[in-house]
Amino acid sequence: MDGVTPPLSPTARSTVRRHHDRQRADRGELDAILDEARVCHVGRVVDDAPVVLPNLHVRVGDALYLHGSTGAAGLRGDEPLCVTVTLLDGLVYARRWFTHSANYRSAVVRGHARRVDDPAERHTALRALVDHLAGPGRADATEEPTAKELAATAVVALDLDEASVKVRSGPPGDGDAVDAGDLRWAGEVPVHTVLGEPRSCPRLPGDVAVPEHVAALVRASP
Amino acid sequence: MDGVTPPLSPTARSTVRRHHDRQRADRGELDAILDEARVCHVGRVVDDAPVVLPNLHVRVGDALYLHGSTGAAGLRGDEPLCVTVTLLDGLVYARRWFTHSANYRSAVVRGHARRVDDPAERHTALRALVDHLAGPGRADATEEPTAKELAATAVVALDLDEASVKVRSGPPGDGDAVDAGDLRWAGEVPVHTVLGEPRSCPRLPGDVAVPEHVAALVRASP
Repeated sequence: MDGVTPPLSPTARSTVRRHHDRQRADRGELDAILDEARVCHVGRVVDDAPVVLPNLHVRVGDALYLHGSTGAAGLRGDEPLCVTVTLLDGLVYARRWFTHSANYRSAVVRGHARRVDDPAERHTALRALVDHLAGPGRADATEEPTAKELAATAVVALDLDEASVKVRSGPPGDGDAVDAGDLRWAGEVPVHTVLGEPRSCPRLPGDVAVPEHVAALVRASP
Repeated sequence: MDGVTPPLSPTARSTVRRHHDRQRADRGELDAILDEARVCHVGRVVDDAPVVLPNLHVRVGDALYLHGSTGAAGLRGDEPLCVTVTLLDGLVYARRWFTHSANYRSAVVRGHARRVDDPAERHTALRALVDHLAGPGRADATEEPTAKELAATAVVALDLDEASVKVRSGPPGDGDAVDAGDLRWAGEVPVHTVLGEPRSCPRLPGDVAVPEHVAALVRASP
């Protein structure tokens, strides 16, 4: 928490009810989770039933942006959304089935989606989406959308003012079994998301080098 | 597809509308995605709004099992659910913002959740959840739930008969830019989920070895 961003102020429906000791109230933690994850899961209500689809997202300031097709089934804004991001950090091995767990950081953002119509805001969001997915510098290195591509792309925004963050870390919770003489192994297996070696498009000649903005992203991966 | 499991028969609402060329109809692919992923995202409708929370899941035959708390906000069965699993396989670098993409395998399972009350089915599901999270052999190596733990645990099941699978793989879709003389780099950066070295619970003496069922799981990771 850097002291600049305000603390999260969850509403009643954004208050963690299960394992509330895992809830975090720092806006900085929310931003860090949204900024690290490349994939989110977007929940909508369609014909009274839930639908959850994966999507790419990006945070710009106090807004979370999503994009989709302007087709019939796409995101259109002006509807309640729930966008959830989960980073799996580890598998937690306990002595009991019940105390097995996962270490993770998750963020749940709820709100009424706003369709973004302003051309400048759409441009900013789409540029940020490319750099968030593919690394800083990627948007500058590639072609902006044509009018036809823009017409096919819906951009929606969700404000970050109703969000909750939940974090579990550390060893299993049943360590007191050791006091009772239970010396079976327990602990944690870390889970890492790792970027591999870039593969060039097979249509390219073999002498086209991987650019530095891509190489840097791969080097920074664990 | 092994030829034994039946093909997926999506309903109208489970038919992929965007990039339908990415839809898969093999039940075997559905099973493989559900079996590889450790985390799912569960969508519910609460007070007419969507809620998406991460959870652990396991497939046993034709059912997907989830567990939760029996507390007020937990999964209770007898409601529509959407359970979505996404495996991110790569970042797709194209020449245009619009053609950037991700390689992924995703599964969306929809249906009316059934609360599992039968003690034998609950036991089977909880055992399978432990082995799915922590690796085959883990349930045998650890303690079954007590009556109190069972009373605090809700188990719900979703049949796999309404599901869709979507897969993208391979290079960017704008390779024909090369024909037009565009030799900027494009391609794919693979994304791997990797298990790290086990960390023993700090309460244990230093000479307690990591058991073979844990070591084997870590060795099998990419």
